[in-house]
Amino acid sequence: MATTEILTAERILEVTEEVLRRHGPAKATVVDVARALGVSHGSVYRHFRTKAALREAVTKRWLDRTSAVLEDIVAQDRDPEARLRDWLAALFTAKRRKAGDDPELFATYMVLTAESGEAVGEHIAALTGQLTAIIGSGVDSGAFAVADPAVSALALFQATDRFHDPCHAREWEQPGIEGEFEAVVDLVVRGLRA
Amino acid sequence: MATTEILTAERILEVTEEVLRRHGPAKATVVDVARALGVSHGSVYRHFRTKAALREAVTKRWLDRTSAVLEDIVAQDRDPEARLRDWLAALFTAKRRKAGDDPELFATYMVLTAESGEAVGEHIAALTGQLTAIIGSGVDSGAFAVADPAVSALALFQATDRFHDPCHAREWEQPGIEGEFEAVVDLVVRGLRA
Repeated sequence: MATTEILTAERILEVTEEVLRRHGPAKATVVDVARALGVSHGSVYRHFRTKAALREAVTKRWLDRTSAVLEDIVAQDRDPEARLRDWLAALFTAKRRKAGDDPELFATYMVLTAESGEAVGEHIAALTGQLTAIIGSGVDSGAFAVADPAVSALALFQATDRFHDPCHAREWEQPGIEGEFEAVVDLVVRGLRA
Repeated sequence: MATTEILTAERILEVTEEVLRRHGPAKATVVDVARALGVSHGSVYRHFRTKAALREAVTKRWLDRTSAVLEDIVAQDRDPEARLRDWLAALFTAKRRKAGDDPELFATYMVLTAESGEAVGEHIAALTGQLTAIIGSGVDSGAFAVADPAVSALALFQATDRFHDPCHAREWEQPGIEGEFEAVVDLVVRGLRA
């Protein structure tokens, strides 16, 4: 790092991801991160007080990248059912891309998410919150009829978990998966309709 | 084994399961099985030509135990929606019991199912076949409206996989899982209704 560059939390997290990719989650240390940044490890600890906090933050950043893309779909002024279908398809696409384009980094984050329950819990809450908003606008428009949009959002999220939960990642490249995704989405969307 | 007892395939599989439980899937051998039965390994090979065939057969037997219980529900002369709900609940109960009551044996079978793709494929085909029969009778009675019961059966099976796929086993004892199961079942059953 050029000595004139300001050491931001974001810059540390960027480099942490690179270090994790290179060394793997078992071996990567804060000293490795500091070395890659050309700073002392004390400088890293000023932003992240422990190694665990740094790992949690980099995991959260990785998970947030997906929620940010989906948030745009929630905010659109369009038919709720179309938004719901697009949202589910975008989630599936984002997860597949993460798993398929960079399998080593994906495997690394599988280790990190397993150890950082809080980041995953917040991620799922953010995603089901987005779904609740879409379902709620469908209830308002009369397209959907559900007793409690938050309960239906969680059910919908869980009913489609084959297409976003990493424990199913190996199934995402199997032939026929697109058709299976469509059939599940059709079934659950029908279950919401008025 | 008493020398007068006939060495049946079923008896070999029973003992194989015990040997797998005791030695673990990595170490269990055909010689261990033969020794536990008090016979030569040639006697075992007369029933199962290879170690792989023996492992496949014991896996199939374990999976078939679940399908056999569910078959009774399919055959009942009752309201299709009630049978469908009972079938899904019975599958969840059976899988939870397998995972919770004997975690070591469950872990053993997770290794075996991962190596024996055919037995798992046949198991899933048997289960979705049962679902297809229930959905088909719901279409006949006018309770359900679906274009193709087999497609809906697979979608329903996949939409509920959180409650039967072993990759979710750790979630089965979490608080709130019962309510989540009910919410997903309500959603998908609504998706089938006429």
